[in-house]
Amino acid sequence: MSYFRDNIDAMAAYVPGEQPAADEKVIKLNTNENPYPPSPRAMEVLRAFAGESLRLYPDAMAGRFRQAAAAVLSVSADWILPGDGSDDLIVMIARAAAGPTRAVAYPVPTFPFYVAQGRIEAAEIVEVPYGDGWKLPVDELIAAGAAVTFVANPSTPSGTMATTQQLAALADGLAGLLVIDEAYVDFADFDALDLTRRFDNVIVLRTLSKGYSLAGLRLGFGVANPSLLEGLVKTKAIYNVSAVACAVGAAAIADQKYHNECVAKIKASREALSGELGKLGYTVTPSQANFLLVRPPAGDAERMYNRLKASGILVRYFKRAEIADQLRITIGTPAQNEALVHAMSQLLE
Amino acid sequence: MSYFRDNIDAMAAYVPGEQPAADEKVIKLNTNENPYPPSPRAMEVLRAFAGESLRLYPDAMAGRFRQAAAAVLSVSADWILPGDGSDDLIVMIARAAAGPTRAVAYPVPTFPFYVAQGRIEAAEIVEVPYGDGWKLPVDELIAAGAAVTFVANPSTPSGTMATTQQLAALADGLAGLLVIDEAYVDFADFDALDLTRRFDNVIVLRTLSKGYSLAGLRLGFGVANPSLLEGLVKTKAIYNVSAVACAVGAAAIADQKYHNECVAKIKASREALSGELGKLGYTVTPSQANFLLVRPPAGDAERMYNRLKASGILVRYFKRAEIADQLRITIGTPAQNEALVHAMSQLLE
Repeated sequence: MSYFRDNIDAMAAYVPGEQPAADEKVIKLNTNENPYPPSPRAMEVLRAFAGESLRLYPDAMAGRFRQAAAAVLSVSADWILPGDGSDDLIVMIARAAAGPTRAVAYPVPTFPFYVAQGRIEAAEIVEVPYGDGWKLPVDELIAAGAAVTFVANPSTPSGTMATTQQLAALADGLAGLLVIDEAYVDFADFDALDLTRRFDNVIVLRTLSKGYSLAGLRLGFGVANPSLLEGLVKTKAIYNVSAVACAVGAAAIADQKYHNECVAKIKASREALSGELGKLGYTVTPSQANFLLVRPPAGDAERMYNRLKASGILVRYFKRAEIADQLRITIGTPAQNEALVHAMSQLLE
Repeated sequence: MSYFRDNIDAMAAYVPGEQPAADEKVIKLNTNENPYPPSPRAMEVLRAFAGESLRLYPDAMAGRFRQAAAAVLSVSADWILPGDGSDDLIVMIARAAAGPTRAVAYPVPTFPFYVAQGRIEAAEIVEVPYGDGWKLPVDELIAAGAAVTFVANPSTPSGTMATTQQLAALADGLAGLLVIDEAYVDFADFDALDLTRRFDNVIVLRTLSKGYSLAGLRLGFGVANPSLLEGLVKTKAIYNVSAVACAVGAAAIADQKYHNECVAKIKASREALSGELGKLGYTVTPSQANFLLVRPPAGDAERMYNRLKASGILVRYFKRAEIADQLRITIGTPAQNEALVHAMSQLLE
């Protein structure tokens, strides 16, 4: 006997990437964290945080962060909806717009949280394979006619991007919502923010987990026209963003100088690491994110994952047919990347 | 044209209690915050928090807090499921167990978040009035036969409690889940934790918002048998509890000495304030929470709410027929309570 809905009983729990214990000495390149510390200004706000602001309920709309994010993005604050990580926005969207007669679609492979949310809502799930070279299957996604279509852009695990023109065509062709998940866009050459102004069915998701080194803080946000956000707010928990996340996140996003410096270092490391691995004979998908999708010459990715782990380097291996011969590797510090190249070179010998 | 489900379009957004701006000089007795600061030990953990723990994703199960809460409650850690406030647990429960053919029931009046969650899940909603003297309508709730039954205990806005025997009879009679929301139990004489061991359909919710002065941190948890929690985890966002909430919350709950001191002060103030208001002619419902439900002699609660607000004291007025002649007033510091009594005495003249 179960106390839960049949679709909940039928599904498995989401399994997050490994988080080694704090005292384990590991080079952690598996969950796309930023290798540099958070903004010193954000840390100052954390250290000076007043007990009084913990004692009281936070602003239910996280106004201080909303204002700071709006200033950086040059949009009005009512175009911003903060969440407990961008996961929280994905949950709000699924609850508000997906359901038994309202399908969820996305190109695959992608972030596995989308399928989990579709399953929880008992929605029909339409998975459309990416085309050759990770081309976004625009026509097939339009044909799916889903109530909610998720596109991670840059995509994970590939690090590639659909063009703004492709996304515009998709937004234009869909009668439902288009969710453009820009979790990794801080490391890319362009973004799709303008589509939120051009199409009333587009919401762009951002996070402070990657570009701002704040994965532990839990802060993300959606950008869309205010009437779309009014619907989403109905599925928001009352006080979803903590007072700490609001204040620290506001300081972090306002510190664009520090952010840009970290991003520039990661992009430079990405190009250097791609080159080194290419020279060794690995095939590297050109990436606009803070990770690389890498195919070993022999395609023995699972073996390599295990060997790297045994030598203290954690990368990501996905048990999915399309990418079973590849590894997803987060860009680390230059020293971490050097250790990785050394280990991956020895594994070929 | 809408991009959302019909039930979402049909519902209104939840309206939280007023949060005055930080620079407003207000005696804030409207949302049941604790008048005393958080544990100094918790504040030490916050001030010493490492940037490295913000940079990395947190433990998806908030293990450190789970262990600390388990030790205080004398249960095994796998009986604890932490959330982004206890709201987050209510969302998980609604998503996992409520739905179009799976009703939600609760006694009224109560915490309005339950109805919001039932509406989001398009569930049938069965509202059963409390009996005279806020008696829990056990038989009527059993007869409702809901998939999820919520009981706030202590109840809000009354501050009264159902007995453990009544709750046991309810748990025993229900085929669905019984959610005992103990948000205010830190101020009560007993709790229902033992029912989680006796009944496999019972989950008890706790929060650090009230008893631990951490409303701004967002941290709550559920207590239930591990197989029940396994189902709920499927509807949890991946990293729902921030690394900050996990560490600060663990320190706060471990500091039982400070907690007990604050709770003792609030209970003493509650009895003193009840006495003072009673002497003035107000009718005060005997409370086991950190607030009082108070009826002015003339029943002119809305007018009093407005007059108190004009004089800088914020209390809670609910526009509901059953309680339209009453105010819910949070227990403040002795000085705040004195100012309240003075103002409420003048309003009678």
